[in-house]
Amino acid sequence: MKRDFKHGSPYGTHRVLEPKGVLPQPAWKIDNTMTIYDNEILIDVLALNIDAASFTQIKQEAGGDEARVREIILGIVDQRGKHHNPVTGSGGMLIGTVKEVGPALSGKTGLKVGDRIATLVSLSLTPLKIDEIRAVHLDKDQVDIVGQAILFESGLYARLPDDIDEKMALAILDVAGAPAQTARLVQAGDTVVVIGGGGKSGTLCVYEAKKRVGPCGKVIGVSPFAKDCRRMQELGWADVTLQVDATDAVALMNAVSEATDGRMADVTINCVNIPNTEMGSILATRDRGRIYFFSMATSFTAAALGAEGVGKDVEMIVGNGYASDHAEFALHLLRESPTLRRLFETLYV
Amino acid sequence: MKRDFKHGSPYGTHRVLEPKGVLPQPAWKIDNTMTIYDNEILIDVLALNIDAASFTQIKQEAGGDEARVREIILGIVDQRGKHHNPVTGSGGMLIGTVKEVGPALSGKTGLKVGDRIATLVSLSLTPLKIDEIRAVHLDKDQVDIVGQAILFESGLYARLPDDIDEKMALAILDVAGAPAQTARLVQAGDTVVVIGGGGKSGTLCVYEAKKRVGPCGKVIGVSPFAKDCRRMQELGWADVTLQVDATDAVALMNAVSEATDGRMADVTINCVNIPNTEMGSILATRDRGRIYFFSMATSFTAAALGAEGVGKDVEMIVGNGYASDHAEFALHLLRESPTLRRLFETLYV
Repeated sequence: MKRDFKHGSPYGTHRVLEPKGVLPQPAWKIDNTMTIYDNEILIDVLALNIDAASFTQIKQEAGGDEARVREIILGIVDQRGKHHNPVTGSGGMLIGTVKEVGPALSGKTGLKVGDRIATLVSLSLTPLKIDEIRAVHLDKDQVDIVGQAILFESGLYARLPDDIDEKMALAILDVAGAPAQTARLVQAGDTVVVIGGGGKSGTLCVYEAKKRVGPCGKVIGVSPFAKDCRRMQELGWADVTLQVDATDAVALMNAVSEATDGRMADVTINCVNIPNTEMGSILATRDRGRIYFFSMATSFTAAALGAEGVGKDVEMIVGNGYASDHAEFALHLLRESPTLRRLFETLYV
Repeated sequence: MKRDFKHGSPYGTHRVLEPKGVLPQPAWKIDNTMTIYDNEILIDVLALNIDAASFTQIKQEAGGDEARVREIILGIVDQRGKHHNPVTGSGGMLIGTVKEVGPALSGKTGLKVGDRIATLVSLSLTPLKIDEIRAVHLDKDQVDIVGQAILFESGLYARLPDDIDEKMALAILDVAGAPAQTARLVQAGDTVVVIGGGGKSGTLCVYEAKKRVGPCGKVIGVSPFAKDCRRMQELGWADVTLQVDATDAVALMNAVSEATDGRMADVTINCVNIPNTEMGSILATRDRGRIYFFSMATSFTAAALGAEGVGKDVEMIVGNGYASDHAEFALHLLRESPTLRRLFETLYV
C-alpha cells in the first residue's frame, strides 16, 4: 500500500507550533509526531549527548538526584517537543540509527535505513519523543534512551564509521568545520598564522594548512603557553611557533613580522576562545590578506572598526562551523595521520 | 639645512605615552608634539567634526554653555593629546590642509603640501594640538579651530575635491567602504540581495551592484518601509524591490525564493543597523553564496551558529569600512551619476 506523504520545509518550519512563523530553534514548541514528511528522516535514538551547560543546570535543579534528572528531561521534551533547555537555551546532539528516509530525499541523501549516525544540528531544534530513559550517565552528560527523532532536510549529520572509536569520532566532529574551511582558504606558497594553534581545532588547522602550503609556504602556530608551543614543535606541522599572547596586538604583529621578514600572513586563522584578539589578527595579516575567525569570542564591531581604524584592507570571515562534507573530511584526517589519531586518543577521548 | 627625522611605526605606537605598548586608540595619552617623524604627515587643522555621541555628552556636561564647551574640548586635548572623549570613548574626524609630508612617504602618498583633506581615521587616535577655538557650531557638532594634527602612515584620509560640495563629500565618505566592497564582491550575472537597500549605504550598494551584474543579473532591494521601496523603484537600479522586514527570516526567505524562482541570492549585502537580521540574510542566500555584513548590529555568534544550525554553507564576511582607494571610488560615483548626486543633495546634505 502506498503511503501519502506531506512535503515539509527544508528548515522544518512546518513543525513549528508556537509561536507561528519562526524557525524550529527559536520556537517554544514544535510538533514531535513521529510520522515523517517526504523530506524528513526518522531516527531510532540510542543516546542523547546533552550540552554541558544544560546538563549542569538540570543536575543542579535536580539536586543531583537521578530520578529527578529523568523527570526534568522527560518534562522538557513533553512540553516543547524537543530537548531544548528553557533555562540555558541550549540542546546537545544525539546518536541513533536511521529508521526511515523520506521518498523526496532518495538520491539526495547518502543515508540508508540502519546507518548509525550522530546529528550535528542542535537538539534545541530537533523533534524528539522519548519512550523510556534507560540510563543516566551523570558524569558524562549522556542519557541512554529508547525513542525517536526527526532530521529535517537541512539537518546535518555524520555517519559514524566502523573504524573509528565513537568517542574519538564525536570529539573531532565537534570541530569538523575548522580543517574543512582551512582547506578552502589556504593556497600553495601561503604564509598561514594559526592563533591558538595548540588547541583542538587549532591543531587541525595547522595540520591541514601544512599540507596545503607545500614546500614554499610557511605555517606559524601561535600560543601564549609554552606547553602548547612545545607540542606544536613535536608534532612538526608548524614551521615556526610563536609563544605570544594574541591579546597583545603589537607584540603579535612584531613577532609575525620578524618570522616573515615583514611580509606578514596571507591567511590568519583565529581559533582561540578568548576576547580581544581581533586587532592582533588584523595586524598579523598583510593588506588584501584574509582572516578566518573561528573564535566564538570574536566581537563583530571590534573586528570591523579595528580594521578600519588602522586602515587595513583585509577580508575578515565569520567562521562557519559547517561546510559541505565537513564530517567526512574531518574523520578522514584521523585515517590519514596516525600521529593525529594518537594525539586525539591521548588528549580528547 | 638638512633636518634629522626619527622613524615611527606606521600605526603610531611611537607616540603612545601611557599605557606603554598599546595602540594609539586605546591609549590614555599620546604625544602631540608637532614635530613629525619621517613617516608622518602634519596637518593645519581648520575644523573638527566631533562624533555625535561625544558632542552631545560635552554639551550636556557644559549645560549648553558655549564657553564651557570650549573649556571641555581644550581640557580633553590637553589631558590626552587627542580629542578622545573619556566618557563616550569616541572621537570624530577633522578637516585641514597638508602642512608637511615626512620624507619616508614621498612616492608612497599622493598628498602634497596645501592639499585640503578630511581624515577618515578617528580623532580618538590622532595627535592634536589646539591653539585657538575660533567658533563652536552647537547645532552641527562642528568646531572651527586653529591648530595642528598628525596623520600616521596607516592613517586614512580623503582629498576633498573642488567639484563636490564639502558637506556632500563628507556624507558619502562616511559610507565609502560599501560601494567599494560591493564592486569587489559582485560578478556579472549574479543575483544580489541588498537588505536595507533604501538607506544611505544600501542605495550605493544597489547602484554599484546594478552596474556589476549586467543585463543577465538581478538586483533585489529589501526594505520594511513602503517609502524606501518606492524610492528604490523610482531610482530604477533595483530590478525587484521587496517590502519585507528582514528580522522575519522565514518571510525574507520566501520572498527572495519567489523573486528568484528558488535560486536564492549569490551575494547578500546587509546594510541595516538593526539586530536580528543574520538568519534572514543566511536563508536568503544560496549554498556557497556570500554574505557581506555592513551592519554594525550584526552579532558574530548569531551569524556563525545560525548558518551551522540550518546547515548552510555560506561565506559570511565582516564588513570592513576600509578598502584601498575607497574614498576616490565613492566620490567618483557622484560624478558618474547625476541621479545619485541629486539624491545626496536632497537627503544627506
